[in-house]
Amino acid sequence: MPRFALLVEYHGAPFAGWQRQNDQPSVQGAIEAALAKLEPGEHTIAAAGRTDAGVHAKGQVAHCDLTKDWDPFRLSEALNYHLKPHPVAILNCARVGDDWHARFDATQRRYLFRLISRRAPLTSEAGQMWRVNHVLDAAAMQAGADQLIGAHDFTTFRSSICQAKSPEKTLDVLTVSEIQRPDGVEYQFDVQARSFLHNQVRSFVGTLERVGAGAWRPDDVGAALAAKDRAACGPVCPPQGLYLAEVTYPDDPFAAKA
Amino acid sequence: MPRFALLVEYHGAPFAGWQRQNDQPSVQGAIEAALAKLEPGEHTIAAAGRTDAGVHAKGQVAHCDLTKDWDPFRLSEALNYHLKPHPVAILNCARVGDDWHARFDATQRRYLFRLISRRAPLTSEAGQMWRVNHVLDAAAMQAGADQLIGAHDFTTFRSSICQAKSPEKTLDVLTVSEIQRPDGVEYQFDVQARSFLHNQVRSFVGTLERVGAGAWRPDDVGAALAAKDRAACGPVCPPQGLYLAEVTYPDDPFAAKA
Repeated sequence: MPRFALLVEYHGAPFAGWQRQNDQPSVQGAIEAALAKLEPGEHTIAAAGRTDAGVHAKGQVAHCDLTKDWDPFRLSEALNYHLKPHPVAILNCARVGDDWHARFDATQRRYLFRLISRRAPLTSEAGQMWRVNHVLDAAAMQAGADQLIGAHDFTTFRSSICQAKSPEKTLDVLTVSEIQRPDGVEYQFDVQARSFLHNQVRSFVGTLERVGAGAWRPDDVGAALAAKDRAACGPVCPPQGLYLAEVTYPDDPFAAKA
Repeated sequence: MPRFALLVEYHGAPFAGWQRQNDQPSVQGAIEAALAKLEPGEHTIAAAGRTDAGVHAKGQVAHCDLTKDWDPFRLSEALNYHLKPHPVAILNCARVGDDWHARFDATQRRYLFRLISRRAPLTSEAGQMWRVNHVLDAAAMQAGADQLIGAHDFTTFRSSICQAKSPEKTLDVLTVSEIQRPDGVEYQFDVQARSFLHNQVRSFVGTLERVGAGAWRPDDVGAALAAKDRAACGPVCPPQGLYLAEVTYPDDPFAAKA
């Protein structure tokens, strides 16, 4: 059966998350249902990141197996047609080797978190970022973030229901950018690692927001990490600012076909 | 009665436009209803730009008269509270002179139009830009746009129901910017004039898109302008890419209070 890699964008709000569930809408379920319109029967797809309820993606990668040797462009167009009206779009599609795996072959995952400090509620951008009322200190947040870089036991920043075998991960990038806007200040967190624990990015951002607000000192972040205790974490921030932005593979499956 | 200037942001999708209507939701109606929660009775507010159905604003300016001498910050907070759940937000509020007028005192209006060329439907950004499937030529669109700059009779680019006394306007800026994105190419149109005719920006963008697609030559835009005939206009583009971005006054009412 020919295997295809899919580059997937979605708005997470209507979904209980990536993973298929019996009684709630999921991104995986929406794509599998669209595949069933093309080739009847059961479809099971795998993705690089199993995003939580409400989390968005700009560059999720999944793979599917089909019986017909579809032209990748026509496959993406047909899937987009059948995905309507769900806010899920196939941005690119490529034929890959039969043993290529969207999850296990991924070597790097990049998340983007958008946080905005402004007094007024959001309108057009509602549901696309986390809004706080108060001012934040970007330099303090970056100083806190710097203490998380490297190989650590991230037990503090891991959900109690995380299923990963080990809490040890290597965080490669956690950069806070400040963007001045007429209506406030936006902070973008660029977070990169080979892989992540459950709720790790939202635990980072929720904690760093406390640093930005002045409730925590930057050094408190290092102390929380060293505690290796979930209770030492700051509040986990809400999901609507989080985007799975990019997944990296040794050979970009979409490079030649873009 | 103290007069207040309001800096207003809104998402246009749920509204029949700015202007109050008896039987349909409007932005003006939403704000007037919020004002009635603060000071019971009828309220009538005026705005710099009476945007059409589906058009958004990042920087609409309106004014209202109240009996109480509200602290401007508290007024904006109270209005935002009562505006929920409408996607309308008061970004700033300032006390102005009793004869200051949001519409008649405005000296410049700036509109932003967002157009994206990408194959896949939009997800998180659905309703925030106009999407076309095909590639566009930014240089050709700019060459067409250049022919519209200056003082002209804009009859060609004016809705047949436009109520302005004269079709003569001066277009100061019409700049097309190209933004490369991983999922396609975005084109942002920056359009500035003292005032606009009804549907003028959407008539410009719809016509320039035809130039970008290669269906029109850039010189055809000048010929259409010279025809002074509504029938010579290209198709009027849809509203969801259009934002009233900024209104300028001789003295910025929000400058001291920001």
